Amino acid sequence: MNLTYKILSAHRMSGELSPGAEIGIRIDQTLTQDATGTMAYLQFEAMGLPRVRTKLSVSYVDHNMLQTGFENADDHRYLQSVAERYGIVFSRPGNGICHQVHRERFAVPGQTLLGSDSHTPTCGGLGMLAMGAGGLDVAVAMAGEPYFIPTPRVLGVKLTGRLQPWCSGKDVILEMLRRLSVKGGTGRIVEYTGPGVASLSASHRFTITNMGAELGATTSIFPSDEITRHFLSAQGREDAWVPLAADPDASYDELVEIDLDALEPLIACPSSPDNVVSVRSVAGTPVVQVCIGSCTNSSYEDLATAALMLRGRRVHPDVSMTVTPGSKQVFEMIVRDGYFADLIAAGCRILESSCGPCIGMGQAPPTGGVSVRSFNRNFKGRSGTSEDLVYLASPEVCVACALTGQIADPRDLAELAPIAVATPEHFLINDNMLVFPPADGQSVEVERGPNIKPVPLAEPVRTSLEAPVLLKLGDNISTDHIMPAGAKVLPLRSNIPAISEFVFMRVDPTFPERARSAGQSIVVGGSNYGQGSSREHAALAPMYLGVRAVLVKSFARIHRANLVNFGILPLTFADEADYDGIEPGDQLRIDGVLEGLAAGELRVSNLTQKTTFTVKAALTEREREVILAGGLLNKIKSEQAEAATV
Amino acid sequence: MNLTYKILSAHRMSGELSPGAEIGIRIDQTLTQDATGTMAYLQFEAMGLPRVRTKLSVSYVDHNMLQTGFENADDHRYLQSVAERYGIVFSRPGNGICHQVHRERFAVPGQTLLGSDSHTPTCGGLGMLAMGAGGLDVAVAMAGEPYFIPTPRVLGVKLTGRLQPWCSGKDVILEMLRRLSVKGGTGRIVEYTGPGVASLSASHRFTITNMGAELGATTSIFPSDEITRHFLSAQGREDAWVPLAADPDASYDELVEIDLDALEPLIACPSSPDNVVSVRSVAGTPVVQVCIGSCTNSSYEDLATAALMLRGRRVHPDVSMTVTPGSKQVFEMIVRDGYFADLIAAGCRILESSCGPCIGMGQAPPTGGVSVRSFNRNFKGRSGTSEDLVYLASPEVCVACALTGQIADPRDLAELAPIAVATPEHFLINDNMLVFPPADGQSVEVERGPNIKPVPLAEPVRTSLEAPVLLKLGDNISTDHIMPAGAKVLPLRSNIPAISEFVFMRVDPTFPERARSAGQSIVVGGSNYGQGSSREHAALAPMYLGVRAVLVKSFARIHRANLVNFGILPLTFADEADYDGIEPGDQLRIDGVLEGLAAGELRVSNLTQKTTFTVKAALTEREREVILAGGLLNKIKSEQAEAATV
Repeated sequence: MNLTYKILSAHRMSGELSPGAEIGIRIDQTLTQDATGTMAYLQFEAMGLPRVRTKLSVSYVDHNMLQTGFENADDHRYLQSVAERYGIVFSRPGNGICHQVHRERFAVPGQTLLGSDSHTPTCGGLGMLAMGAGGLDVAVAMAGEPYFIPTPRVLGVKLTGRLQPWCSGKDVILEMLRRLSVKGGTGRIVEYTGPGVASLSASHRFTITNMGAELGATTSIFPSDEITRHFLSAQGREDAWVPLAADPDASYDELVEIDLDALEPLIACPSSPDNVVSVRSVAGTPVVQVCIGSCTNSSYEDLATAALMLRGRRVHPDVSMTVTPGSKQVFEMIVRDGYFADLIAAGCRILESSCGPCIGMGQAPPTGGVSVRSFNRNFKGRSGTSEDLVYLASPEVCVACALTGQIADPRDLAELAPIAVATPEHFLINDNMLVFPPADGQSVEVERGPNIKPVPLAEPVRTSLEAPVLLKLGDNISTDHIMPAGAKVLPLRSNIPAISEFVFMRVDPTFPERARSAGQSIVVGGSNYGQGSSREHAALAPMYLGVRAVLVKSFARIHRANLVNFGILPLTFADEADYDGIEPGDQLRIDGVLEGLAAGELRVSNLTQKTTFTVKAALTEREREVILAGGLLNKIKSEQAEAATV
Repeated sequence: MNLTYKILSAHRMSGELSPGAEIGIRIDQTLTQDATGTMAYLQFEAMGLPRVRTKLSVSYVDHNMLQTGFENADDHRYLQSVAERYGIVFSRPGNGICHQVHRERFAVPGQTLLGSDSHTPTCGGLGMLAMGAGGLDVAVAMAGEPYFIPTPRVLGVKLTGRLQPWCSGKDVILEMLRRLSVKGGTGRIVEYTGPGVASLSASHRFTITNMGAELGATTSIFPSDEITRHFLSAQGREDAWVPLAADPDASYDELVEIDLDALEPLIACPSSPDNVVSVRSVAGTPVVQVCIGSCTNSSYEDLATAALMLRGRRVHPDVSMTVTPGSKQVFEMIVRDGYFADLIAAGCRILESSCGPCIGMGQAPPTGGVSVRSFNRNFKGRSGTSEDLVYLASPEVCVACALTGQIADPRDLAELAPIAVATPEHFLINDNMLVFPPADGQSVEVERGPNIKPVPLAEPVRTSLEAPVLLKLGDNISTDHIMPAGAKVLPLRSNIPAISEFVFMRVDPTFPERARSAGQSIVVGGSNYGQGSSREHAALAPMYLGVRAVLVKSFARIHRANLVNFGILPLTFADEADYDGIEPGDQLRIDGVLEGLAAGELRVSNLTQKTTFTVKAALTEREREVILAGGLLNKIKSEQAEAATV
């Protein structure tokens, strides 16, 4: 049995472990970040439970920290007080990025973690089964309910050899992306195995599992071995360690092999993480910005390496270089160990421990300028500059670019000797920015600023639906198209009425106004609809605007789950050719909705074109109940009401 | 002779040194920051000179550093390239706040400094005559032209005694504000003298001269003495030192005496820097945010003191505490000397070296929460939160608040022993974030992003003006009211058409629309109109919207000069009682404008109320020429055109 199936088996509460079949998994730990967390806790509050039912739930603040208006600080105070009330550990703004802090202080090999952030798989680096989900799914997990996924296929990655000088975990995952593309991990868990694993430090492993999200994988996982034990021991948590590995004769649905000896420094070119080439092949391209940080590469080892490369040197005068320590622990340690002064001396700009520029929260690059970043995503415009040119690479490559003012392979800089920073024997433990909840938080008053609005609820599905097609879209529409992020929109994440004004902003700014006028509406799209970030706001805000059905050629998994959770019908064309027969503005009518959902197939009349066609609603029984209730929150509320009357 | 008159005499190019009479002063050095600097350099470029004609001009980047869109980074690249071209030293983003870096690396006792920032007087702490001005005035000074001011009265401040434990320069200037109010320094230069001066470190002096801007003073100045020599020597610049002091029998127009022995920790309550009370009188008020930084209090000594107070302690869990080092020098030194780790360990949030939260550039406090800051201004809404509650106090008081979660006098915290951090014997000198221009920059290509728009020009004044009163305002309207700053507006500083949409945003958001409809318009205000920041955008953007005259009881000096520079008539009521006879919307008419300006007096008909009254236009001959030309840039351009035809 492979490691993935071992952990899934130990946590299975319903369903059969057979690729594609839905299983319910017990969730040991949850994490949230502030941009998705406010909504997750509003939803948890709406369920009416006195306290979370997980082993551990942690609420982080790392996204909305610029605080250009009152909204962010109000959200932080809401999150701190709601955590205290419901038994959740609160990590204060400044304590660090959720995935960095969680691996340092909380992650446990063999347990399950559900997080309302797509990079939650990071903790897979120490043998945890860690998955990203929408906020409502996390709220439900906090309520002790199982998390449902289609049983994934397991993609084994056999590592051989060892990393050569100037190569790192970043190059391993960039090589994976180069080979498999951003869709290569869809429906899969990526499990690392083979003799090369033992040569990878915990820090390298976390970079690999973190950026496994870019493969579209459900999660990625490493065995829990002596490296893991050392990491946990250095964090003062050796008691959390258990050895975990696939059986020697474990089988995988697919297998890939990577020879670490053969890897060279790689870089993802604009504007997709799988647009990977060798650094040397694009060397010489002028660079105006370099950013080191993000949940992918802001560990002690990453920053110490950057500092040693910069010691006694100077950032090129044409380059603006930022450094963002991943956590308070990383920050204090690189200061006390003397590395941080080198970064300042060289001319780095120092940013607070947070997601920062990786999510477009500051440090937008200049028009037409190349930015090389140690981050995990480079989708167009994510940096805050619409026509950006963002490259992704290891911290080592980033520093080489910063020193020379152009894309450079560190192997080609004669003045640099290879650097190897070992995992510290003892990390500096100081948890004073974690607020642990009292045993009973019922007397805690939750603080709600004026931007924090109640969660809107969907209406239950009716027997017939008649509505106009407000938008007809093409393929690969991402959740960034549906519900943009960035410094202007993210502060509104706790306020659905306000944030809904930005739905489809970059596609059609008239959408919110037209949706409100129409009352209820339908969106039509192509294939892979809803790819990218897990943000449930991409379902919740359209629902608030009256979108009742989304009709496409195919869905991305998490977005489809979010549509179900918020009571929007996720429909696919039985015959994709019918997509061509629909025009924007067409009035569609579906009768017999309830029977159709039960049968998995509905008949649609296009009243404008005077045509009819068939659509699929491939819902599980559980999903159908959710849809009929008008969304998961409605369903849970009515179940609780029933339970109370028994 | 007092020190002020000694320096003025040595730099006088025209006019007589007689209070109120206009003099032209030779400017040795200029500085700009990015929020005002882009416009200043666009104006300098418009003058067509090949190179600046000052001894030294420095361009800093410290305001617009959040970079939530492409605009900031584009501005930085414009500023760096235009500096290289025209012989200006460029201080890169991350190198620090202009007033901190300038005093460290460039300020010279006895010289004159003109800066496009109202806190330019900071360098008066070492005997420099340092004044704030609009960007256009700085551009003109860079062109080698004199800077014109009404000869100020000199307010002597005789200091006796010495600061008691837990008291600092901040308490000296807060005491001045308590006594004199934000109008008390208008038309005056504040000169510090007396035996107490020798007991004040350079750092204390800089805090006092910096925040002298809040008195409305033209500038503030300290003698250049052994303390000054030590400071310059520690900066490796002892050769810049000259001893400077008032003659022993110097006379002052007014004299104030402050007994340092008698000072206690003071605090300015919301929402004016002169709303000063003792800390003890408001002790116990709950605090949710504490910010240390800004050009007023972010020196090595300030941050080392804060660190020693926090060493081994923890920021109260209800308080979000930020620390912003004033410069790269300060940053690197507090790191290398071991202080910085204490700040992180205690739970401080670390912000980049910049103005940051002081100008509402991030860290807006939560709704209804008290924020205590070591900054210099607490005007309502400046923090980014409309209904903010911002208090101003010394770093020592700030830390006492952070430790206890309430306003607290450090003298009342038994666990704290008084701390005295001496000025270092040697500051750490590393100028690698300063870019020095080449001897000939003519081949440098200036980079202009799409948000960088040409400077609009005013129309010449016509013989009659008829326009509606679009707004009637009260006393102490600040330039923050007229042209707000903050994270949403500041990125537009190089784009007048775009930024003009925010004129009077917090007072009356309909103003821009109404002004455009009206075509031309008049604004009426009370006394001290235009106090606060020196931003010329508070004249330039209203001019762009069609404001042709501002009619008030009295003006703050820099804003009045900016109105003249951009061709807006700066009028005052001959009889302040006439203010009461005007209602918003009244149509006013002034005939014989040209003759009236020459006579210094104009007759206004209120067509709506059917009244007439007299207003003053106390323009110098030079100012009148500027107004008639439609602003200074028009005047300089036509002079150059004339010169070219000679």
